[in-house]
This record gives sequence, structure tokens and C-alpha cells, in this order.
Amino acid sequence: MTTYNAYIIDLDGTMYRGNEPIAYAAAFVDTLVSEQIPYLFLTNNSSKTPAQVSHKLQQMGIPSTAEHVLTSSMATADYIKREHPQARCYVIGEEGLHEALKQEGLAVVEENSDFVIIGMDHSITYDSLSKACREVRHGAQLISTNADTTIPTDRGMEPGNGALTSVVSVSTGKQPTFIGKPETIIIDQALKRLDAEKPNTLMVGDNYDTDIGAGINAGIDTLMVFTGVTPFSCYPSLPVKPSYYVQNLSEWLPHIKKTAL
Amino acid sequence: MTTYNAYIIDLDGTMYRGNEPIAYAAAFVDTLVSEQIPYLFLTNNSSKTPAQVSHKLQQMGIPSTAEHVLTSSMATADYIKREHPQARCYVIGEEGLHEALKQEGLAVVEENSDFVIIGMDHSITYDSLSKACREVRHGAQLISTNADTTIPTDRGMEPGNGALTSVVSVSTGKQPTFIGKPETIIIDQALKRLDAEKPNTLMVGDNYDTDIGAGINAGIDTLMVFTGVTPFSCYPSLPVKPSYYVQNLSEWLPHIKKTAL
Repeated sequence: MTTYNAYIIDLDGTMYRGNEPIAYAAAFVDTLVSEQIPYLFLTNNSSKTPAQVSHKLQQMGIPSTAEHVLTSSMATADYIKREHPQARCYVIGEEGLHEALKQEGLAVVEENSDFVIIGMDHSITYDSLSKACREVRHGAQLISTNADTTIPTDRGMEPGNGALTSVVSVSTGKQPTFIGKPETIIIDQALKRLDAEKPNTLMVGDNYDTDIGAGINAGIDTLMVFTGVTPFSCYPSLPVKPSYYVQNLSEWLPHIKKTAL
Repeated sequence: MTTYNAYIIDLDGTMYRGNEPIAYAAAFVDTLVSEQIPYLFLTNNSSKTPAQVSHKLQQMGIPSTAEHVLTSSMATADYIKREHPQARCYVIGEEGLHEALKQEGLAVVEENSDFVIIGMDHSITYDSLSKACREVRHGAQLISTNADTTIPTDRGMEPGNGALTSVVSVSTGKQPTFIGKPETIIIDQALKRLDAEKPNTLMVGDNYDTDIGAGINAGIDTLMVFTGVTPFSCYPSLPVKPSYYVQNLSEWLPHIKKTAL
């Protein structure tokens, strides 16, 4: 078995469910720390800032700083900054997205935008969607933090950002560029932040379509854990299998060892 | 040329543009009245009541009563009433839709619904979309007044009801039943209200995808007028041609004659 020198770890369904930590999540990350293996939490959640995310992890006893967190909003801001450093952005989204764009020095505008960026927004309105459509028709490029069609919440499955984005793509006929998992854009950024190489990096997550899909699409090994969205009963029908799977993360602890370089 | 004993007439782009009457619209309907030919205005607009629509027409000098109007909301309420007379409906929509459901004696509820009905709603919220998704996941049938992806307005093209509906269909994976043009459901209801037969009924409209498409799908003759959405320059590339076309409705006046029965 390959030993892995860097870990990319999903959050919801892997480290916690809502506000409840998942068993062995803290032990898993503690072991990475004691083995001095770099790790990065990777989330499609575009609403929170990295400081908010790491604070939540710390409160669950999971070692984390803001530098250990890459959100789809941060990946989106990074992507746009590289595409067009002086980009003007029309934005639908919450604090995490606005903060990420600000960190990259990108301007948020109401019109004459270069990019329309859509992230999860619980306060979305017809007017904001209509303006997004208008900007796209005027030539702005449509970017969406992630394509998730649903979000699991305490109230059940709710519509995700991919579903909200469809209003603009259906109305304008323009396909968005999605940034979050399972796209490779966010994985490439994660590898860069970790200063890691694909052959010795492991992607860990519970959601086949996003987490494991991202690893498969990017060509890195994957560890699937059945504590979240995708149940073990689906395993036999998965079209491309993950590299490994465990029922919970305790089973993986013996394999966390750094390669002697 | 066939003479037509009943006319189904589109509104926006055919009778008026926004709040401006279109030239010869009043003369066209005046001629139908003087020839004693029954007519029905057919609109995908789900927001207005038939009384509001006919009032607008009257103010433009176009002869109309509420009985001359069939909206996609009325057709939706009629459809649901036939499917399930005691239906409980979760509704996203404006006055026209609520009024139409009330007219049919259908209950509007917040949960445990048999149908989720989506019509144009300028006050749409994440919460209302989320509830709609929840109801559909619990087994409610998804109905949408119309599939229009855009609406032409004074402010330009805005997202239509088909684009709003996509949030629920993308998130739940359930395809909606659409009622409005170009579906045949609404045309069948129009023919019933007019007590008309297909071979002697003419569908008049400006929008190829909705108006002319509805006539073609239902197997009735169509008159296309280039005063609205679809420009004459598109005519050569239309996959199935309308039965007739005119630049404006004045050209059709000589053909308005009732068949001697």
C-alpha cells in the first residue's frame, strides 16, 4: 500500500454531521499531526470563512487553523484572480464568498461585471437572480462555487448551490464554470497549498459524487468513509471504485505513516 | 384557405408589448367581434387574474371580458381539479395562481401536499423553494404553470417561471408537468372553453417556441406575427413553419370571415 504524505479531507459527513463531530475524526487528525503529515480540509460550503470553519473544528477537538481550510469560495476567488486580476464581480452569496473575494482584492459591483459568481445564498431574491441573468447576457462569465444539487441539513435535504445556479444557466443558456468538488480546479489548488504531489496524496470523504469524484477526476487516490451521504449499500454499484474504503476513520489509523523521504 | 370559426390569441407580443398596445390589435379583435367569431386570449402569464388581464385589454381599446381570458394559472387549477378534486397544494406564485386555485376550490397548504405548484413569483425565497423540494421528496407531484425560461420586460429579459422551477427539478431530480404553451394541456382547455374543433381554430401569436409550438403540438393551424419575441429573420430556420405569417395583424383582417355553417 502506498503511504501518503498529504491528506485532503472533506468536512461534512467526514469530520462532522451538522454540529455533531463524527467518531474518530479528532483521532484521525491527531494522528496526522503526530506523524507530521500535512493536511487540508476541503469543503464545498461557500458560506463560511476559513476562520469560522476552523473555529468549529477546534470546538470539536479537531486540530485546525484557518490555514488548514480551503473553501469553494476561496478556490473561486483564487481562480478568478488568476483569470483576471482586476475582475469586477457581481456576486450572489454569503459572508464566506464576499470575504474570499475581498482577500484577493477583487471588486464586487452591481453592474458592468466581468464575472457573475453564484454561491449559496439563503437570502436569494428574484431581483438578485434577475441581475445575474442580465450581467451574463451582457457578457459576464458565469462562475458557480459548486454544483451540489442538495445540502443535508437538520431539516432534511435542502436545495444546494447547483440548484440555485440553474436559474441563471437555464434562463441565459450559458453553462457555468463550477469550481468546487468534483471539479479538478479546487483539487489543483489544494495540492498547491499542501505543496504535495498527486501520487502521495490521499483524498478522504463520504460523498461519492463530490469527494471521491474529485479524487478520481484529478487522478489522486481516494479513501471513502461511510459516515455521511453515500451509504455502504451503494458501494457495489459505484461505477469507479474508491482506492480504499472504511466504515469509519478508526480503521485507517494504522495506515497513517509518513514515507521516509 | 380554411376559414376559421374560433381564434386563440396570445397577448404579450401579439396584442401588446408591456403597457403599449400593438398596432392593429384592437382592429383585429374588433373584426372578430363584428364577424361574431369566438376568441380566447391565452397567456402563460400566471401572475394576473383574468379580470386584471381583461381590464388591461379594455384600457387599450381591445374588446374583452374576463371570460375571454385563459391564463396558465387557470389551466393549472383546472388540470389539478380534474386529476384530484380534493387536492392539497403547496404553492409558489402570485395573485393569479392563488385566485385560480381558490376558484376551483383547491386547498393551499404548507405541508402534506399532493401537488407542488410553481408559478412566477417575484417574492420567491430560499425558504419557499426549500419547502417545495421537501414536499416533492415526500411524494407531491411537481406542476409548473409554464416552462418559459425568460420574460421580456421593460428592464430587459428576466428569468421566467421555467428557470425558477429548475431549482426544484434539479434539486429533487423530478421532472415537472408543465401546463402552459407549448403544452397541449392548455390548448385542449382553450378549445373546450371555445366549444371549438381543431380543424377550424387558429392559434395566433408572436413567439415560435410557445405560441406557434403550442398550435403545432396540438395539431391546429397557426398564424405567426412578427411584432414580438421571434424576429422575421428567424423564419427561414424555423424547423416546422407556421401555417401562415404576417408582419402585423392588419394583413390578416381580410381573412377574418366566419364559415357559413
